Amino acid sequence: MSESSLLNELVSALKCLPSVGARTAQRMAFHLLEHDREKGLKLAEAMRDALENIGQCQQCRTLTEHEVCRICADKGRNPDTLCVVESPTDVMAVEQSTAYRGYYFVLMGKLSPLDGVGPEELGLDLLEIQLENENLKELILATNPTVEGEVTAHYISELAKKYNVKTTRIAHGVPVGGELDYVDSSTLSHAFDGRRNY
Amino acid sequence: MSESSLLNELVSALKCLPSVGARTAQRMAFHLLEHDREKGLKLAEAMRDALENIGQCQQCRTLTEHEVCRICADKGRNPDTLCVVESPTDVMAVEQSTAYRGYYFVLMGKLSPLDGVGPEELGLDLLEIQLENENLKELILATNPTVEGEVTAHYISELAKKYNVKTTRIAHGVPVGGELDYVDSSTLSHAFDGRRNY
Repeated sequence: MSESSLLNELVSALKCLPSVGARTAQRMAFHLLEHDREKGLKLAEAMRDALENIGQCQQCRTLTEHEVCRICADKGRNPDTLCVVESPTDVMAVEQSTAYRGYYFVLMGKLSPLDGVGPEELGLDLLEIQLENENLKELILATNPTVEGEVTAHYISELAKKYNVKTTRIAHGVPVGGELDYVDSSTLSHAFDGRRNY
Repeated sequence: MSESSLLNELVSALKCLPSVGARTAQRMAFHLLEHDREKGLKLAEAMRDALENIGQCQQCRTLTEHEVCRICADKGRNPDTLCVVESPTDVMAVEQSTAYRGYYFVLMGKLSPLDGVGPEELGLDLLEIQLENENLKELILATNPTVEGEVTAHYISELAKKYNVKTTRIAHGVPVGGELDYVDSSTLSHAFDGRRNY
């Protein structure tokens, strides 16, 4: 504990950041105070601005400070496809890596009954509104290949059946550049099941 | 880059924290937005409060939001000794680990001409005012045992000679619990030079 109570408050507040413990928090606080006051003040402001103004897109649930996010507002995208992902970072990953130019639906989580996350928490009612849309031809399930991600994908595929929307799941397999030797058996088995004509 | 400009600003502002890169900054921003908005707002406030209100103690130069820090304001401490350290964290370390109950002088750095840090930047004029004090019997040099720390200690010891104040340097040697095998040669050589009667 230092001699300054404001400093102690800053150190303990910094601990709310992920993977920041007492020691790192102290180092961060001293760094800001000794070297970077101006940037620190900007950070405090950016943090307040973001936390007070960023909400969820009314259409796809991703984080945005507008009513509807930039992607949902873009009328030039392909309305035939909707890609379901778990988080806003997944949207960024798909946008950066793939040629996908349809719309998204962001669950902001995955089904996890033990943590009290059910269909309502994932905004599946909002998803159903989009499933009712006649333009929609394909629902791409791009949840993570974890147990919860698979369960979530399965649940949503059942939902889509009711609306007669075709669902697809992104492929599981050996990562590009990976070596068969180092790939776990479940992934390798998926890679064999999902083999394609060459 | 995400779809939200406020989010992008937050992510890039978070990168001013030490050892926080693009990836960690993004993870921090999403953590705050998705799970911890209340604590995040408190953090933003604590950060602004600290950065706007914490200055330096007029006597010892440590970080404090008051004119004079708690230790300097404490009249019950031993006025015979003054301990020179590089940073406020060093004060905390000495307070926690030792029985030292004299006063401190915090350099807020070390002599480093290449970085433009000279005697003025370390507030040595303020230190001289304290060296003039007739009560002062011993100046303990507790700068870090690095090259710059040693140079700083040497410079200050020369300064103290002018005022006929005895200076001492904290002992360098084998850390308690360490093994001779793993100690670097310079430390071991210091440990031998500094040997005491048993």
